[in-house]
Amino acid sequence: MSGGSPAGPSRAAAVIGLGLIGGSVARDLASLGWRVWGADRCAGAVRGARDAGVAEGFAPDEGPPADVELVVVAVPVGGAPAVLRSVARWAPPGAVVTDVASTKRSVLEAAGAAGLGARFVGSHPMAGDHRSGWDASRPGLFRGARVWLCPADEAGDDAVRRIRDLWIRLGADPAPIDAAAHDRRVAWASHLPQAAASALAAVLDGAAVARRELGPGGRDTTRLAGSDPGLWRDILMDNRDEVEPALEALIDELALFRRALQHGDDASLRALLAHARDWAASG
Amino acid sequence: MSGGSPAGPSRAAAVIGLGLIGGSVARDLASLGWRVWGADRCAGAVRGARDAGVAEGFAPDEGPPADVELVVVAVPVGGAPAVLRSVARWAPPGAVVTDVASTKRSVLEAAGAAGLGARFVGSHPMAGDHRSGWDASRPGLFRGARVWLCPADEAGDDAVRRIRDLWIRLGADPAPIDAAAHDRRVAWASHLPQAAASALAAVLDGAAVARRELGPGGRDTTRLAGSDPGLWRDILMDNRDEVEPALEALIDELALFRRALQHGDDASLRALLAHARDWAASG
Repeated sequence: MSGGSPAGPSRAAAVIGLGLIGGSVARDLASLGWRVWGADRCAGAVRGARDAGVAEGFAPDEGPPADVELVVVAVPVGGAPAVLRSVARWAPPGAVVTDVASTKRSVLEAAGAAGLGARFVGSHPMAGDHRSGWDASRPGLFRGARVWLCPADEAGDDAVRRIRDLWIRLGADPAPIDAAAHDRRVAWASHLPQAAASALAAVLDGAAVARRELGPGGRDTTRLAGSDPGLWRDILMDNRDEVEPALEALIDELALFRRALQHGDDASLRALLAHARDWAASG
Repeated sequence: MSGGSPAGPSRAAAVIGLGLIGGSVARDLASLGWRVWGADRCAGAVRGARDAGVAEGFAPDEGPPADVELVVVAVPVGGAPAVLRSVARWAPPGAVVTDVASTKRSVLEAAGAAGLGARFVGSHPMAGDHRSGWDASRPGLFRGARVWLCPADEAGDDAVRRIRDLWIRLGADPAPIDAAAHDRRVAWASHLPQAAASALAAVLDGAAVARRELGPGGRDTTRLAGSDPGLWRDILMDNRDEVEPALEALIDELALFRRALQHGDDASLRALLAHARDWAASG
């Protein structure tokens, strides 16, 4: 980010979880002149953020040593409820709270249960890749990226505006969406491709085909298989009611390919491939 | 290719099919000083090759107007038998013949049936991507690429040496392989990823998710879906006895993911994702 410091005293934020997403948020906030307090289970991540001049460390159970106006929870979705309960204990009354998890229904529920509903606006930035951790974080990660915003039912207009403005300052393109519609959408657009890439990778391993033996297309198709297993177990399990029908649809479609091959059905096979190509060509 | 013309009179080759692979072979041969005769069902491809100074057109039923020492058949695998029968009619006795198809058993059989066995060495360059046609062809496409070589049973050592040397001049890394072993290998390493990407694309279309809505990982996973449907129908159908068990294995693996989600089985889901990640991490 270019930006530079604002004219007034610097604004302060707490970022809990300094991985690919949280670390990149912290970098951009620091570039914009914010004072950033950072926490991570991994001491190396906190040290990395401090050495980079991005954030000072703090204990997430106790809160940062000075008031903050923004709290960003950037931990795997399975860890969010406990972190939100801690945040509710120390977040100043004027602070707004967001998260960056890939699913939104369960996080909104956890924020409400923690008593943070009035100032919680969930975020899901459509940015990042299969890498993870502080070392994968980088400035400008959110530039041009869609960020889905899911305000808690009780969230005030001011909280929604502040979180939307945050993402705009980070170069992103925020848009509101209903949490249930969001979770259904990402089940297909994000969680299904992850499961497909992982399943394909496991099958290739079973056939003793190494990734380096693949052509460029096969390497593309399996790239997501390198994603963090713990993170994705949390995401897929959290959204399992939506992911399961998507997996079923993929299994059914692959069975159509298989049947066309078994029957030597040229026309059906071509139609299946053309359907896919038309979708790819339409953008 | 840099290269430049050899000292002696220029060597001559015929390339039938001026798409991504054949067009790129023609470009590299021309850069090395060869005289290239090119044929394609698509008049625009022949015109493109002529306008680029790469090849002069010829009628593949009649053969080029002058003797050639090399014939490269670069048509979809379904069209290869008819082309090989034509080549057998006009290829000079000293010419060697190769192809570039993604499957090798059926092409070797067709070359033998056409009476070309003694001078036919099949090639499969592991290069290219989801694009196709003359406009996708480019110089240096084969640099560093593995090229599998499958000589016909009756092929002489001289033919094998000449085709191997051809690929080395084009910067590739040729290696011999048994045709049956080749076709089994590419069923998993190439044809299965293609089918997986196409099936995923069709399913996303069914869920009304456009490709532009995907993140970088989802776009990677579905890139191959943009491949040419006719070309891939030919490849998958030609290799169906090997592709079908690979598809079955992928369906079974996806069913394991689905079952883990249905049962809320965190440990199994993590193990499935970790298996995939370990494969991806090992290169």
